[in-house]
Amino acid sequence: MVETTRRQEIEDVASSLFHEHGYSGTSVRDIARALDIQGASLYAHVASKQDVLWSIVDGTASRFEAAADAVTPAPDAESAGSAPDPADRLAALVRAHVGIVTDDVERASVFIHEWRSLSSERRAEIARRRDAYEQRFREVIADGVGAHAFAPVDPVAAAAYLLTALNGVVAWYRPDRRLTPAALADAYVQLSLQALDAGRHAEVPA
Amino acid sequence: MVETTRRQEIEDVASSLFHEHGYSGTSVRDIARALDIQGASLYAHVASKQDVLWSIVDGTASRFEAAADAVTPAPDAESAGSAPDPADRLAALVRAHVGIVTDDVERASVFIHEWRSLSSERRAEIARRRDAYEQRFREVIADGVGAHAFAPVDPVAAAAYLLTALNGVVAWYRPDRRLTPAALADAYVQLSLQALDAGRHAEVPA
Repeated sequence: MVETTRRQEIEDVASSLFHEHGYSGTSVRDIARALDIQGASLYAHVASKQDVLWSIVDGTASRFEAAADAVTPAPDAESAGSAPDPADRLAALVRAHVGIVTDDVERASVFIHEWRSLSSERRAEIARRRDAYEQRFREVIADGVGAHAFAPVDPVAAAAYLLTALNGVVAWYRPDRRLTPAALADAYVQLSLQALDAGRHAEVPA
Repeated sequence: MVETTRRQEIEDVASSLFHEHGYSGTSVRDIARALDIQGASLYAHVASKQDVLWSIVDGTASRFEAAADAVTPAPDAESAGSAPDPADRLAALVRAHVGIVTDDVERASVFIHEWRSLSSERRAEIARRRDAYEQRFREVIADGVGAHAFAPVDPVAAAAYLLTALNGVVAWYRPDRRLTPAALADAYVQLSLQALDAGRHAEVPA
């Protein structure tokens, strides 16, 4: 219990430092100093700086994946026929993505910008998981284009456009009263659906 | 003439290395090695690694600014009344932005991701210029919202959404026959105009 909390603290502090100075610009000593403990004490909780980065990136990837699982059937699920309409699925994907980002901007930022600092095997795993996640967006977009629910856009370009726009939240967004996380999510859902011209094209019944 | 060419080569190589390994992950020795010259020879052409970063970032910022100047009147120009309609201006801004990015993905990537590695005075200057550039997008969007040419979106959120989507090109786009730079620009103009629901709202005559 205490260990979980301490580990959590370490990841929180590391996320904040990696976000501000980058992974390569942050030392284990910096993390220990921010926690007001000795570097040696830190190693009682984590094996290495790389280990902390992995926990942050893997944990954040899992949050995105779980959210997408709740919205879209897995790529080779048999139940695709019963999926809700593409605009609803896309709106849910966008809302979930923005929610995870605004819930912890620093961890999301580390996931988005620092995953390339993972060791090669872990980097390959995250590259694969990021591709699979982006593939969910491509498939919903392709479904919507195929059903004439969206404008005839290139699903690869459109998925990249949307996802980089959503990820960009970490670079500029700071919650305030004018633009709350909920208002930001609403605005981004609206912009994303409009980007695909959703609702302007007649849906062809299945 | 020779000096200009050598300087250009140095910036090209540095852009490529900064893009792949980050500014902090690249040494002057790495740049010299990639050019097959001695580090000491490199210093005949550039004062420091920071100096090279500045040239790349400042030069790229100037390209974006010149392109925007050609499209939108400067923020406090007197001629705003004669500006073309917001959808045309936004389309031109998006097309110009994507064109500069695809024309040199590596320099654009350094501009977008590595400007924070500039020394504090230069970083402040680039932060100011980036804000002013983003302000152009906000103003065109606000004009379009005000004229009922665009959906009623928040101009700050919408400008951030669009610009991060456009900047995201550096992270994923590699030209190929299926998606040429011109086809990418077309797709991104379409997505951006649709994101604002341009052309769906009746324009109120000025």
